[in-house]
Amino acid sequence: MLPPKDLLNFLKNEDNFIIATHISPDGDGLGSAIALSIALQKLCKKTILLCKNHMPKQYKFLPGSEKFITFETLRSLASNFQPCNLILIDCNDIDRITDDRSEIQGVNINSSLLIDHHETQKDYGDIKWIEPGAAATGVMVYYLTNELGVEIDKDMAINLYAAIAVDTGNFRYENTTHDVLRVASELIAAGAIPHVIYRELFESWPDGRFNLFIKVLNTLQVEDGIAVVKVTREMFNETSTTPDDTEHFVEFPRIMEDVKVSVLFREIDDNHFKVSLRSKDGINVAKIAEVFGGGGHKNAAGCRIEADFETSKSRLLGLLR
Amino acid sequence: MLPPKDLLNFLKNEDNFIIATHISPDGDGLGSAIALSIALQKLCKKTILLCKNHMPKQYKFLPGSEKFITFETLRSLASNFQPCNLILIDCNDIDRITDDRSEIQGVNINSSLLIDHHETQKDYGDIKWIEPGAAATGVMVYYLTNELGVEIDKDMAINLYAAIAVDTGNFRYENTTHDVLRVASELIAAGAIPHVIYRELFESWPDGRFNLFIKVLNTLQVEDGIAVVKVTREMFNETSTTPDDTEHFVEFPRIMEDVKVSVLFREIDDNHFKVSLRSKDGINVAKIAEVFGGGGHKNAAGCRIEADFETSKSRLLGLLR
Repeated sequence: MLPPKDLLNFLKNEDNFIIATHISPDGDGLGSAIALSIALQKLCKKTILLCKNHMPKQYKFLPGSEKFITFETLRSLASNFQPCNLILIDCNDIDRITDDRSEIQGVNINSSLLIDHHETQKDYGDIKWIEPGAAATGVMVYYLTNELGVEIDKDMAINLYAAIAVDTGNFRYENTTHDVLRVASELIAAGAIPHVIYRELFESWPDGRFNLFIKVLNTLQVEDGIAVVKVTREMFNETSTTPDDTEHFVEFPRIMEDVKVSVLFREIDDNHFKVSLRSKDGINVAKIAEVFGGGGHKNAAGCRIEADFETSKSRLLGLLR
Repeated sequence: MLPPKDLLNFLKNEDNFIIATHISPDGDGLGSAIALSIALQKLCKKTILLCKNHMPKQYKFLPGSEKFITFETLRSLASNFQPCNLILIDCNDIDRITDDRSEIQGVNINSSLLIDHHETQKDYGDIKWIEPGAAATGVMVYYLTNELGVEIDKDMAINLYAAIAVDTGNFRYENTTHDVLRVASELIAAGAIPHVIYRELFESWPDGRFNLFIKVLNTLQVEDGIAVVKVTREMFNETSTTPDDTEHFVEFPRIMEDVKVSVLFREIDDNHFKVSLRSKDGINVAKIAEVFGGGGHKNAAGCRIEADFETSKSRLLGLLR
């Protein structure tokens, strides 16, 4: 995996970079952005790390995570930072870094660059490096820093290892290749400590989240290889949690060997549910989600259904069967 | 990590090997034994795979797992298999492969070899290769096959990858080093498919086990950073499960950031519990288990307590606090 020459030359020749990742940032976007920022600083470049949202709690351990600024702060800095170039990390359009385009309009962008592993039909970006085959943007940034001649230090290693661990489910998803483990191995050699990073990323649930998890599991129903669980607004109140706390819940029932599809209904309003679907064995849940105006990937999709729970469930299960 | 010369020479010069792993076999013992058996067969040696117990369900996907025989079958084969040598895999004493020494007495053992990553004070074994620093015996067998000049084929790769995945908790435990990931990477290149192996090892729970898991979680109590869950004989009956199905349950409550110690009480009889303890942050639960006549490692230990649940719990928690 080699970054394009024009990207390398551009990074070498320019001086000022805003490095931005997407709304609702995840470990791959954040870790990759921070590692790239450190690498460019080692080449005596000036960098700004930009994210619309506050740092999620589980990523605050990433060294450098405190350096992200918001669009508001950006406007006050940008005048001293000209000409500046925008690098989008782990996303491929300006709409992915802000839902309010006016926020970026005051900033004079010279050129825009994309570094991403998501497939795209968008035409944003002056220089693009898109690798849909890469397990994580973190893998791409690993190769990019190598090509830039920057030695990976401990802080970079922690960020890139976390990026890869998040996007591969700690090396358990289908995207875990021999190259992913080889790169992760190099990052350990450079200072990343796997069990410490695992714990920060995956084993730091607040008590309330665990209590919510138990409540959700108690709603489990399994029929014809389809597992259904439900989370209500009342459960959030009882456990002082928010919808963010349900991340990964839908994946758990897949631990059962006979479960082919796992569904989480999250109550948004009276008779209104956000539905998450996960499948295995090649069952295409994106097609089901599309029927309800949603979408996603073959084995991970989502949609909304406006009806009471029993009606919503029977409509969805009817299609899934 | 290099196997000792005398071990290599012995394997090269002898012809017949019984390869045995321990009672209550796990993925590391089984996968390592099978991979070594295939390697020796490629060198035109005769091998027998031996295990006291039947193959646990989650390891039946290992290619070659069907070749294990019991001690009973061994006695009928051994006369055609002379002189034979015994290799203990992932254990270090004859008592670890059978609790009834008479089972092995009819077999004329020429020499005994140990390949293990557990520390030992035992003096069993004519040739020993003990690497307490190895994450898994599977890592040792990987290096051994390399030194024997055997190319790792797909079946060997699956077995060794599974061995390492089991003993590192799929690369999340403290023993996950850069060398572990490098070896795992090589095994993927040789044909192991991570997400398929992960699913077989960790995501093939029977429904009953998942229902038991929910029942156990519903007993959760957290006090002073100590999480306590309980499993009763009634729960096993209600879910058609057995004590084996509680494997890993004690680890789950550690997902909570404020939980330092997780305890599972399993009811064996009236007023008699088997207790499993897991800790983080360096808390030594082996010392607590020893008070009750048990033992284990610093962060994973067990014991038995004979008293009613509330008394058992308060005695244990009193010590833990």
